[in-house]
Amino acid sequence: MWVLLRQDPAGFPLKTMTNAFKTIALMGNFDDARIRETICSIAGKIAGQQIAVRVSDRWDTAELPGSVVKTAASEVTQSADLIIAVGGDGSMLFAARAAATAGIPVLGINRGRLGFLADVSPSDHLEALDAILGGEYECEERMLLKSEIVAKDGQRECGIALNDVVVKRQYTGRMLEFQTHVDGRYVNTHGGDGFIVATPTGSTAYALSCGGPIVTPGLDAVVLAPICPHTLSDRPIVIPAASTTEVSVHEHQNDVAEVSCDGEVAGQLAPGEKLRISVARARVELIHPRGYDYYEILRNKLHWGRGNRKTTL
Amino acid sequence: MWVLLRQDPAGFPLKTMTNAFKTIALMGNFDDARIRETICSIAGKIAGQQIAVRVSDRWDTAELPGSVVKTAASEVTQSADLIIAVGGDGSMLFAARAAATAGIPVLGINRGRLGFLADVSPSDHLEALDAILGGEYECEERMLLKSEIVAKDGQRECGIALNDVVVKRQYTGRMLEFQTHVDGRYVNTHGGDGFIVATPTGSTAYALSCGGPIVTPGLDAVVLAPICPHTLSDRPIVIPAASTTEVSVHEHQNDVAEVSCDGEVAGQLAPGEKLRISVARARVELIHPRGYDYYEILRNKLHWGRGNRKTTL
Amino acid sequence: MWVLLRQDPAGFPLKTMTNAFKTIALMGNFDDARIRETICSIAGKIAGQQIAVRVSDRWDTAELPGSVVKTAASEVTQSADLIIAVGGDGSMLFAARAAATAGIPVLGINRGRLGFLADVSPSDHLEALDAILGGEYECEERMLLKSEIVAKDGQRECGIALNDVVVKRQYTGRMLEFQTHVDGRYVNTHGGDGFIVATPTGSTAYALSCGGPIVTPGLDAVVLAPICPHTLSDRPIVIPAASTTEVSVHEHQNDVAEVSCDGEVAGQLAPGEKLRISVARARVELIHPRGYDYYEILRNKLHWGRGNRKTTL
Amino acid sequence: MWVLLRQDPAGFPLKTMTNAFKTIALMGNFDDARIRETICSIAGKIAGQQIAVRVSDRWDTAELPGSVVKTAASEVTQSADLIIAVGGDGSMLFAARAAATAGIPVLGINRGRLGFLADVSPSDHLEALDAILGGEYECEERMLLKSEIVAKDGQRECGIALNDVVVKRQYTGRMLEFQTHVDGRYVNTHGGDGFIVATPTGSTAYALSCGGPIVTPGLDAVVLAPICPHTLSDRPIVIPAASTTEVSVHEHQNDVAEVSCDGEVAGQLAPGEKLRISVARARVELIHPRGYDYYEILRNKLHWGRGNRKTTL
Repeated sequence: MWVLLRQDPAGFPLKTMTNAFKTIALMGNFDDARIRETICSIAGKIAGQQIAVRVSDRWDTAELPGSVVKTAASEVTQSADLIIAVGGDGSMLFAARAAATAGIPVLGINRGRLGFLADVSPSDHLEALDAILGGEYECEERMLLKSEIVAKDGQRECGIALNDVVVKRQYTGRMLEFQTHVDGRYVNTHGGDGFIVATPTGSTAYALSCGGPIVTPGLDAVVLAPICPHTLSDRPIVIPAASTTEVSVHEHQNDVAEVSCDGEVAGQLAPGEKLRISVARARVELIHPRGYDYYEILRNKLHWGRGNRKTTL
Repeated sequence: MWVLLRQDPAGFPLKTMTNAFKTIALMGNFDDARIRETICSIAGKIAGQQIAVRVSDRWDTAELPGSVVKTAASEVTQSADLIIAVGGDGSMLFAARAAATAGIPVLGINRGRLGFLADVSPSDHLEALDAILGGEYECEERMLLKSEIVAKDGQRECGIALNDVVVKRQYTGRMLEFQTHVDGRYVNTHGGDGFIVATPTGSTAYALSCGGPIVTPGLDAVVLAPICPHTLSDRPIVIPAASTTEVSVHEHQNDVAEVSCDGEVAGQLAPGEKLRISVARARVELIHPRGYDYYEILRNKLHWGRGNRKTTL
Repeated sequence: MWVLLRQDPAGFPLKTMTNAFKTIALMGNFDDARIRETICSIAGKIAGQQIAVRVSDRWDTAELPGSVVKTAASEVTQSADLIIAVGGDGSMLFAARAAATAGIPVLGINRGRLGFLADVSPSDHLEALDAILGGEYECEERMLLKSEIVAKDGQRECGIALNDVVVKRQYTGRMLEFQTHVDGRYVNTHGGDGFIVATPTGSTAYALSCGGPIVTPGLDAVVLAPICPHTLSDRPIVIPAASTTEVSVHEHQNDVAEVSCDGEVAGQLAPGEKLRISVARARVELIHPRGYDYYEILRNKLHWGRGNRKTTL
Repeated sequence: MWVLLRQDPAGFPLKTMTNAFKTIALMGNFDDARIRETICSIAGKIAGQQIAVRVSDRWDTAELPGSVVKTAASEVTQSADLIIAVGGDGSMLFAARAAATAGIPVLGINRGRLGFLADVSPSDHLEALDAILGGEYECEERMLLKSEIVAKDGQRECGIALNDVVVKRQYTGRMLEFQTHVDGRYVNTHGGDGFIVATPTGSTAYALSCGGPIVTPGLDAVVLAPICPHTLSDRPIVIPAASTTEVSVHEHQNDVAEVSCDGEVAGQLAPGEKLRISVARARVELIHPRGYDYYEILRNKLHWGRGNRKTTL
């Protein structure tokens, strides 16, 4: 049962959950010693609270409590009502997609520095965890994108993304030429390295490096950002999340373009085919410690307001 | 009576009006010979159709039909049910604010090249006008911003804007330091030339020159764009239109900052005061000829897709 | 014999040649009908002036004058004292590198629109050619870059470039991490899509799409531009052309990076290896019609000064 | 007597001086308590080494050693062979212009954080000073710009600048329209907030906020950067330092534009007048502690290489 406790003034839909978590799935790169250590300390803590713990059976569980349930990696979220992911934002992206698919929330424990998504720091993660397991947390919904490739002989699913769906030329040295349509309406013919369709969550990732704006998570919008565009006025566009974007590679292009979701290769886009991106039905719930502040994370990650590059004026 | 005829697939709320216009206010820079000529031809056309025409009494009406009603400039929109503005986007900004205040739609006839707002070209304006007066047109709602200055001894209104509210340092050579809050939440401390709060309409104006994204008119969002920011990671942010933005100049700053709405000076912001910007209650209805296409205007104005700067790849 | 006729005030080293051309090599994409037609008309013209013409023996020479000498493509510049290249800037890049190697000048006839390098338009190429063969032209020297890969077991040449040497990640979805040094001095550790080292000639090509500045051809400088850098303050740097730049991919990176010269793949850069880029000894002489104006080409290619995107102010 | 001790590999002309300093002028904002304290400690140290110290007679010298010579501010550099400036880069800009005029070197002691110009930190300034007074330092020459306004009735000097000469519109809300010429050759017609002509030193100041590149101090070049240009392809240009740039405001413009040098108002540019900027004859010698590294300062000021904004990839 979800209870909407407060309407965040900045437009972030923060909620507070009242029921307790009974089964938790743990995720992270177990080969990394620091991450493994954090995972084990978390597993010990929650196992001691009569909460069932599920992990991948590929993990060497010698260091984990005996009560931990090992399952196939693909089944680790089954019957779980929370995912805890340990690692950087990369691990969080993976866990968040799994959470969205399973319909359960996800909590991110960072490996080192504060992340955009994994916003519990390892230094105080056990205290933070105590509070969260006790019901003291905020919950925020984030949209995901789904992508599918429309070919002459039908269409095939391409992947879902919390951050972004990216089309790039596969070979260096050649410019990719492609067209974009939004809701069936022709937008532009682009030349360059490729194209990004990003969620607000992804607006602070790759799209930001390509000149895109920051979009607050509370806005139902999507960023369309060309990558190194040939035409200098080919600028990022922000459109309603409800819109459908299509990217089609010119028929005469002899390159295949590559599609990736959250940085992982998801498909090939051949000349004449088009990639269709729209908001996914599933959304993901991010669990934050109380007092979560999006702008504080921005300031921290982007080194704002520290009087950097004080030089002249 | 407004009738919603079609839901534009790109998210633009296009409507078609069924009732006829009975009184039309004409606006434009009457001192410009080309504009005057266009205005007179329009006045002749509509006066011939038993539509009342209202113009400013500062216009030399010798060239205008005798039936034209001359009024104080401030009363030209009274009892009118349409404004026709002739000129560039600057004239349209003025007319659109007047239209929003009067609660009537506005149609823009461009002086020369196609504009973002004045999208009827002078070459075929009489034909376009015929169609529009006959009910053949589309109508699109655009948001406006209102601004007010909050001082220790109360607050004062500052102005409304269809494009943008801008805070800038008044003297060259000094960096303006200021803070921003969104919905009461601290965002950042900025140093630079100033700050822009822009509507989707204004996203293709000054904000675009400052690195902001294009925001489609159908998205309920506002762009916050720093002007020449000292910190390179101080990037534009897109927030929900329902949010309130505050810009406050540092107490220790000995400069007064200047506030302008749509490029016209609207007030002074003293150290310790803050400028509050939110969406205005009034919106403006833009009248477009049938077949209006926002992306086509973008392509035209931004010289997209013409294979410009073809050089290497 | 070269005679320095005028010192261009803008710093472009324009010269005028006094001797006549005796043997001319023709280059271009002979498979393209429009280009083939232009090549044949040029060949006819110059063959009629007792100038020897050399072309690749892979060309179907039925349409070419009988006196044309067919040779292996690699020998087409032998004993030639001028290359005429027909096509876009891509063909010019190829011809210019051949010209630099052979130590002879090159003249570019554009296929369609004016190019940065091929600045004789096809509409008046025969008249322009007459003037140039008669000694009426200007000659401008452009620098090239050479690149070599330094591995543990020695170093290997990688290629020369008139525009740019580019290092890019080979697989999408992964960020390339690399370090840069200039003249042995550590500059930065970068994350992103890659890195460009560009000549002034190349500053208006790919580097411009990556946020680099325009550098006038008369300046002995090189642009270092990161491609979609992770860190927003990782900005393009302009250094003296005499400096040597090294790009090294992190040892732990499991991707191989790809090196391309003027957009053509030139080598692979494995983790632990470094790419060294410096100015090539050979330079290339570009032949321009009298009255050549670099800024005019900029204005034309970049659509400057046409009052584009007139919107608000 | 200057002795060239080493040719810096990165192209920075570093020299080492062998003669001792006999008279030192101290500069800085004496009203700032922290700066006053640093100045007094420096004055005590160097007065104790039989070096004459000169300061402005507007300083309250109670805290300064009795041997300090008080003079009119304009004469403080007279007979001095070194300026020591305490403060931020703003104070250094002032001191550097004075040093260039007087033909003596300048050493910058920073007030707080490391500066681009004032690169001796206050924490170890006395040790650094010891080494420098003992001849252990490096000396680097930086160019300055001079500006003059060419009117119909003659020309008037406008000012010199170590960082930049800037033309800006004086009133907000209006776009400034102006033309640029380089060495008499027409470059572009611009619309926007103004225009910057920056030295390599100034390339990391205001020009960087306007999208300009970093230019290493060893390159004899100047950056031309439009401020918030209306046309998106109106990009920064890097030209040889030997070139002369002219900025002229359109005759029909009814605004006066303001010219500033290093952020201080230096003159007014009326419609029909032109501002001419060229490299100044005088250059300034910056004194650095041994081991000065330009790239290290860049990394420090721009927060490079710290894995900032680690998010996705």
